[in-house]
Amino acid sequence: MTPALHNRRFLRAARREPTDTTPVWIMRQAGRYLPEYMEVRNKVTFLELCKRPDLAAEVTLTAQRVLGVDAAILFADLLPILEPMGMNLEYAKGEGPILHNPLKTAEDVARLRELTDPGELGYVYEAVKLIRRDLPPDIPLLGFAGAPFTLASYAIEGGGSRNYVDTKRMMYSDPASWHTLMSRLSASLVRYLRAQIEAGCQAVQVFDSWVGCLSPSDYRRYVLPYTKSVIDGLPAGVPIIHFLTGNPALLPMQREAGGSVMGLDWRVDLKDAWRTVGHDVAVQGNMDPVILFAEIPTIRERALEVLEGAEGRPGHIFNLGHGVMPGMNPDHVKALVKIVHDEGARR
Amino acid sequence: MTPALHNRRFLRAARREPTDTTPVWIMRQAGRYLPEYMEVRNKVTFLELCKRPDLAAEVTLTAQRVLGVDAAILFADLLPILEPMGMNLEYAKGEGPILHNPLKTAEDVARLRELTDPGELGYVYEAVKLIRRDLPPDIPLLGFAGAPFTLASYAIEGGGSRNYVDTKRMMYSDPASWHTLMSRLSASLVRYLRAQIEAGCQAVQVFDSWVGCLSPSDYRRYVLPYTKSVIDGLPAGVPIIHFLTGNPALLPMQREAGGSVMGLDWRVDLKDAWRTVGHDVAVQGNMDPVILFAEIPTIRERALEVLEGAEGRPGHIFNLGHGVMPGMNPDHVKALVKIVHDEGARR
Repeated sequence: MTPALHNRRFLRAARREPTDTTPVWIMRQAGRYLPEYMEVRNKVTFLELCKRPDLAAEVTLTAQRVLGVDAAILFADLLPILEPMGMNLEYAKGEGPILHNPLKTAEDVARLRELTDPGELGYVYEAVKLIRRDLPPDIPLLGFAGAPFTLASYAIEGGGSRNYVDTKRMMYSDPASWHTLMSRLSASLVRYLRAQIEAGCQAVQVFDSWVGCLSPSDYRRYVLPYTKSVIDGLPAGVPIIHFLTGNPALLPMQREAGGSVMGLDWRVDLKDAWRTVGHDVAVQGNMDPVILFAEIPTIRERALEVLEGAEGRPGHIFNLGHGVMPGMNPDHVKALVKIVHDEGARR
Repeated sequence: MTPALHNRRFLRAARREPTDTTPVWIMRQAGRYLPEYMEVRNKVTFLELCKRPDLAAEVTLTAQRVLGVDAAILFADLLPILEPMGMNLEYAKGEGPILHNPLKTAEDVARLRELTDPGELGYVYEAVKLIRRDLPPDIPLLGFAGAPFTLASYAIEGGGSRNYVDTKRMMYSDPASWHTLMSRLSASLVRYLRAQIEAGCQAVQVFDSWVGCLSPSDYRRYVLPYTKSVIDGLPAGVPIIHFLTGNPALLPMQREAGGSVMGLDWRVDLKDAWRTVGHDVAVQGNMDPVILFAEIPTIRERALEVLEGAEGRPGHIFNLGHGVMPGMNPDHVKALVKIVHDEGARR
């Protein structure tokens, strides 16, 4: 890594070193709200876009450039890792992802293969290389993957879910299958994320998007050891953002599971959450994404509230509390980035 | 109220007085999981069932009797209060509620009428009277209503929602309309709940089912004053259960908004949550409903965890963290009630 890259504000903040201003990126920054993205997306299916390194690189680079954010994030999705593990994945129009052979029984779980050769997802690392080649040399590139619970819930439910009934049923009623599933996912994720890092990512984010449906005692018993094994399996010195959404009561265990940056959703005050996870770890977040539908003065007011929550402490990376949404005005996203850069410098 | 009713375990626990064992009831206890309910429900539409006092009374009484729970809860729904306020409500098959004239603009909100004559919901109080007449005299009857935010979100979104975009947009971008809407809902709710109490309910629960989508600062600004005005508007001495789900970071403000019993979802440990809201208030909850899909030994183990969280302190009413679900085995629900009564007595 070059000194310029090492010393730019995103990676400095991830190490809790002082920065010239608050670094910012936006979850799902290369997404459907962006006309430059839609132009590429309209030519191919979503899964093709994930698997075409040239196009994945293009949308990644464009988003970083037009927004002026402090990090690029690899364009990819949480679920393609399940394909080489034996699952049949489809993104149905307007319906979200569908897994046509969901894991409902012990036999289904037994058939799930561990990802032993991460090369089966070679198109991802190819995209990483293309992005790294063309990204400004001082801008870090983030890789990412789903956390074991979030992937398990997709694999069991066969798609999104409201109440995670089958997922919890397996946890409660067939803990052996649950353990097999979570272990295979965790081992696969370590290989997948290591390969992203080897291909050129400077940091990675682990998304536990659906784990907020669990009670603290279920998180501790059925999730924490597996997420921890993923994070512990990654190379030392590479910042890991551990993002979890939907249940602020899990914050102390989010920290316990590991990561150098705790990704926060908007359901907590950043100041309170940072105190809870400890000031000896960096934090990322956490403006409610829906605020981007409001006018710019409101966006400014709310962005300032988040910045103030950091109390001038080094180690805050600004982000939304979840992904930017289709229909949002790209000018509002750009304005937010500028507000953070301007106002973060004054703190 | 007779001394027998006043002194039975549910009302004693709501006042934080010692009880012979832990009282228990189950949210949505008269629901689709129960064959006795389905038999009645199959004869009429859902809205007809809500509006037929004889049938609403029948399903209410049956659920209390077959489960052996310590309280009956009026069979009704959150949304019919919106009809006399000017909204066009339909329960579409398999789709949940639809409001055909959702409140999207300031003009829409201006047209919403306040419920000045609670008699427009006379079928509800008629059901209360029938239930009270036939309920065992020492079993309390609970009334209920949606909290202002939850009703506002239905009214604005026109039904259920994933991200509450239009609701939050009105909050952020048209605070005057938001205030009008929340004020009219709050004033209407006070009249509606007072009329339920006058008709014969011994306690009421206010359901803020969707408010967990908000950040603490939005809750404080846009919700707390209105929920508080509803709770403050109810007669002193009647226990009010204030139930909120989806965001444990709101617990301190849930308490601030009021209520003599804090209804908890399963995302928190009961012990931690009780400490957070304060031991000078009663609590209700909070087993994950999905645990009822597991086998009875697992249900027992998890029910004991919840009971232990109460640490033998008076003022705990056992419940699930949300409603019982279709497809659950009624025998599991009955077993849970028995477990709570048997084990609660030993503490």
